[in-house]
Amino acid sequence: MSSSASPTLPPEPAAPVYINALMFNTVGYLFSGMLIFLMQLGFALLEAGAVRAANATNITLKNTLNAALGMVCYWVSGFGLSYGGGNKFIGSSAFFLLDLESLGFTEAFAFCQLMFALTSSTIMSGSMAERTNLVSYCFAVIMLILFVYPVVVHWCWSDWGWLSQMGYIDHAGSSVVHATGGCAALLGALMVGPRIGRFGSSGQPMSLPGHSTVLVAQGALLLWVGFFAFNICSGNDFTQATILGHIAITTTLSGAFAALAVLLAVKAMQRRWSLLIALNAVLAGLVAICSGCATVPHWAAVIIGAFAGLQLLLTSHLMVRFKIDDPLDAIAVHLGGGIVGTIGSGLFAREEGLVFTGDFSQLGIQLLGILCVCSWTCAWSFLVFFALRRAGMLRVSEKAELEGLDVYTHREPSYPEFMGMRRDPDELAMRPTLFPLAEARDLNA
Amino acid sequence: MSSSASPTLPPEPAAPVYINALMFNTVGYLFSGMLIFLMQLGFALLEAGAVRAANATNITLKNTLNAALGMVCYWVSGFGLSYGGGNKFIGSSAFFLLDLESLGFTEAFAFCQLMFALTSSTIMSGSMAERTNLVSYCFAVIMLILFVYPVVVHWCWSDWGWLSQMGYIDHAGSSVVHATGGCAALLGALMVGPRIGRFGSSGQPMSLPGHSTVLVAQGALLLWVGFFAFNICSGNDFTQATILGHIAITTTLSGAFAALAVLLAVKAMQRRWSLLIALNAVLAGLVAICSGCATVPHWAAVIIGAFAGLQLLLTSHLMVRFKIDDPLDAIAVHLGGGIVGTIGSGLFAREEGLVFTGDFSQLGIQLLGILCVCSWTCAWSFLVFFALRRAGMLRVSEKAELEGLDVYTHREPSYPEFMGMRRDPDELAMRPTLFPLAEARDLNA
Amino acid sequence: MSSSASPTLPPEPAAPVYINALMFNTVGYLFSGMLIFLMQLGFALLEAGAVRAANATNITLKNTLNAALGMVCYWVSGFGLSYGGGNKFIGSSAFFLLDLESLGFTEAFAFCQLMFALTSSTIMSGSMAERTNLVSYCFAVIMLILFVYPVVVHWCWSDWGWLSQMGYIDHAGSSVVHATGGCAALLGALMVGPRIGRFGSSGQPMSLPGHSTVLVAQGALLLWVGFFAFNICSGNDFTQATILGHIAITTTLSGAFAALAVLLAVKAMQRRWSLLIALNAVLAGLVAICSGCATVPHWAAVIIGAFAGLQLLLTSHLMVRFKIDDPLDAIAVHLGGGIVGTIGSGLFAREEGLVFTGDFSQLGIQLLGILCVCSWTCAWSFLVFFALRRAGMLRVSEKAELEGLDVYTHREPSYPEFMGMRRDPDELAMRPTLFPLAEARDLNA
Repeated sequence: MSSSASPTLPPEPAAPVYINALMFNTVGYLFSGMLIFLMQLGFALLEAGAVRAANATNITLKNTLNAALGMVCYWVSGFGLSYGGGNKFIGSSAFFLLDLESLGFTEAFAFCQLMFALTSSTIMSGSMAERTNLVSYCFAVIMLILFVYPVVVHWCWSDWGWLSQMGYIDHAGSSVVHATGGCAALLGALMVGPRIGRFGSSGQPMSLPGHSTVLVAQGALLLWVGFFAFNICSGNDFTQATILGHIAITTTLSGAFAALAVLLAVKAMQRRWSLLIALNAVLAGLVAICSGCATVPHWAAVIIGAFAGLQLLLTSHLMVRFKIDDPLDAIAVHLGGGIVGTIGSGLFAREEGLVFTGDFSQLGIQLLGILCVCSWTCAWSFLVFFALRRAGMLRVSEKAELEGLDVYTHREPSYPEFMGMRRDPDELAMRPTLFPLAEARDLNA
Repeated sequence: MSSSASPTLPPEPAAPVYINALMFNTVGYLFSGMLIFLMQLGFALLEAGAVRAANATNITLKNTLNAALGMVCYWVSGFGLSYGGGNKFIGSSAFFLLDLESLGFTEAFAFCQLMFALTSSTIMSGSMAERTNLVSYCFAVIMLILFVYPVVVHWCWSDWGWLSQMGYIDHAGSSVVHATGGCAALLGALMVGPRIGRFGSSGQPMSLPGHSTVLVAQGALLLWVGFFAFNICSGNDFTQATILGHIAITTTLSGAFAALAVLLAVKAMQRRWSLLIALNAVLAGLVAICSGCATVPHWAAVIIGAFAGLQLLLTSHLMVRFKIDDPLDAIAVHLGGGIVGTIGSGLFAREEGLVFTGDFSQLGIQLLGILCVCSWTCAWSFLVFFALRRAGMLRVSEKAELEGLDVYTHREPSYPEFMGMRRDPDELAMRPTLFPLAEARDLNA
Repeated sequence: MSSSASPTLPPEPAAPVYINALMFNTVGYLFSGMLIFLMQLGFALLEAGAVRAANATNITLKNTLNAALGMVCYWVSGFGLSYGGGNKFIGSSAFFLLDLESLGFTEAFAFCQLMFALTSSTIMSGSMAERTNLVSYCFAVIMLILFVYPVVVHWCWSDWGWLSQMGYIDHAGSSVVHATGGCAALLGALMVGPRIGRFGSSGQPMSLPGHSTVLVAQGALLLWVGFFAFNICSGNDFTQATILGHIAITTTLSGAFAALAVLLAVKAMQRRWSLLIALNAVLAGLVAICSGCATVPHWAAVIIGAFAGLQLLLTSHLMVRFKIDDPLDAIAVHLGGGIVGTIGSGLFAREEGLVFTGDFSQLGIQLLGILCVCSWTCAWSFLVFFALRRAGMLRVSEKAELEGLDVYTHREPSYPEFMGMRRDPDELAMRPTLFPLAEARDLNA
């Protein structure tokens, strides 16, 4: 067709081939999957910045392993239990992505869904940072992606799922992804216990600030980008232009109002502008709007976002009160934000929500759903973390924790030329927290 | 429909659904919007690296707020004033994105256009870095996105706009986005005054280098990616394959030649290879090609890029001469590059440009357009910054500036474990600039 | 058309325009090109983190120049020699992207292909880091993108190419991109010689660790994202949904299993969990699956990935044994991984591979191909690097190397406020390597 003087590849099709939904969705899944995979980098940076320099290599490796191990687990059984045919409670085909109909299409779908799974499990690495054994973290990832998370997906997102059939609204996973990950993060933080020096001799919270606010911001801004892809692709149908555009705007509004509400609240309470809390607020707002992004009106997204942001302050405070040490406030962001969002859909969904219909049934379904998702995840997380603790594997040794995991476990200090800088861990541990109500400030990142 | 043994979600459509332009453009807007939103991260890193470590948290929070606050303002009135129906000068509908026809489609369009608005306002944060009050910066963002920028968009990009109707060429915003942002940045830098220590007792420029060239490079490279999406999506029609491909190549050439031209020029003048100036040159080249990316031939993109790069050196020099302290050379990049690009389209547009037609009329329109855009923005920026200065709100206290904003305003030092490193501000301020002509080197980043 | 009260831009098309393959592929090329361009940032961060802080500006500038200069070279002759019409060995039209049929479509294709070329040439900057003259690196980039790489592309990927016509399998460039870049990297490292202090007085390897594991991880995770786009877009036809989905899964599996295999192997050998080696393993796995990503089954991707990871340890060891100093192990990742992948396709391609057909012919073609690609690249690289060395231009002066290139060549220290931290180069050079077999640890990054 081309003469020998003209460039060849790729030939422009002579008779036009028109694009159908299968092609379009396949490409949509793949590009969305890539953008959501950027969130693995986002979490790695967020968490690296929020820990001390002596543990930055360690947390980065945990995030890398979360991706690599999660990919394998999702391939083995994650997709099969999620979307494989089965009963109302669990899928039972398509393990190892075998026996798929319309192979490539489903592979693309599985690729994209995998990225959601990775997002869920990475939440734990934050709440358990700086003192959890690497192997134990791997077991937790395996537990979550091999089994616990896929079952939740089957309930809520597959055609067979009992919650899905009841009309449970969780478009992009406020509960499926974030509350699931957040429950595992909560149980993990509970079972592994606080870091040395996190609470003083009389139980007062101490400040253990992360080593770089810039890294934290970098991670959070990257996650912000990823959340758009996360929410937009969650309907699994890129031909639904009306829904997609709406999702973009509700997601935008929820994140933005969460940031502004919290920024002002912290200014009022602590007389300072906090970058770190504002960033966490953005994330909480984005987590909360996942559930209702396709169904709530703009103004409800504003409310959900602001509310999710403000609960962050309360939840974070409660964590400290109960001596649960969550270096990134991951529990407040993902579990707290996830619960707010799931309930928000029950209130504000345009066709089903209490505010519009005066009918409590959707709200009831939402409450039932979040309760079941959390109970299921908490139960399994308890079992696994309890077993790991019993086996003495859950936590690193005191020596390792004081010396820093990067040198002790990895022999790869994160900043070898700047190591002289590292402050003495005792000194760090002894510094009292600076702000009255502001445990949030120190926990948070 | 599916047998119980086969995976379920999403079902492959039986009768093929074909993709129309509405679906295609919606998805195109959304993915472009996400990639352009990456530029917010790019700017945050560029600016964080270009300031001293004592102000890195502050500038990062300004960038975060730029995004959050900008989103709200654009939702409230930005889109309505831009694209809402109205007269030749201003839109007057679609506030709060209400009363839209074909809702989701327009929401997706608004999402993408929002990202352009955020890009415009973030330019100020660079030129005013290290000494501007956070609240004042917020007022400036509100002014720009709530009102000033949307009016410019209405003139130049909406069907009703008087410049648009005259045939003004500004495909992706050399003037609309960058000169607008650049004018606000210029007025801001003028009104807030130079940083303490930026000019010595006899008026000579002093070196106040940023704290990380790697962060600056990271930001600039990310912006490079974002600019491609920026230019490609600006025609708002992804079915125009011919134009899209052309834009990709002209954008590529302009950025690349800008970098090479400036690198050689700086080597000739200063006997050194400058990373920081080369990165700014790339950005200036990309800013300049925004206007004509769809209409100028390849070779003209080369000229426009090289010229935009070289003007950077001159403009940066002039800024120092007039004692305007722009820590990132944001004015030279965005305002200088924007003017070069707008004029370049008048010269080199294939169907209208002076070089091809021998007719000065398009060039005249371009000059009129850039003049009006700059006058409009400068006037409003002057008013707002003047009022803020009068109210004593524009600039932080001397104490805050010397101590560093991160600790003083935020109590969140950017690198808590490396703080011992921070050089004494007096010592920094006292160090004379190292290179004869090279104020550019120090300003720039 | 719109009433004056409704928003205007862009109008929703009245009669639906359907999307054809030309439009779809154009947009696909452009978005893929942008995501692949992110790999330039990925490499810059990977390499910056893997060198000492005194050379971080230098390596970042090399990466920036790689992009800018590569763009120009590819425009001048890269695309023409690659895909221009011609004979079996070299293209001879479309220089400067002139005389293209269906201009915009081919421009979009060229944009995407350009990003592959940039990936290939950037590999050298890693293996030659910390001691190569900037101008010499530029000559190497010009050599590779102007001539050497395009010829390889013409052989393997254009319709005319002799290897392409023989049925050579290299879908996304295990040999075309990575072995080509890896051979140039090998010759470069050989000719420029090891860094001062890399080998002790009795020839034993010494540890010269990079300055930030976090930057290395950031770069590697970004490359991971880029590789998905890299492989998915390589078939140049986004309508092939089945192939695209398959590629996403094989790419996923290969990278993940490479990481896990190597992590366990290093733990067994060195009693530690290595982040840096795990990251390089991911990259090696991704490089290796490029060739067969579209044609091998899932389980073969697992084998190819694991094998590519494990060869990294061996190849890295051999490099040290032969006193080739590769600060990033770029040769082991890209050349080693590329060879493993090219052979892997000969074994495991579903329709042609030895394992399925029992026929050695495809394996023979693969061996012939990789041999010719490597010989061609090595020959030209030898010539160019030899000439540069003869001219005394290849390597920086001893003084520059000891002082650090950032200050000496650029006068832009990477972290001006942290400079007091820089360890004495003599001290660094004198520190013996810590781990018996673990040269890998120090080389690698």
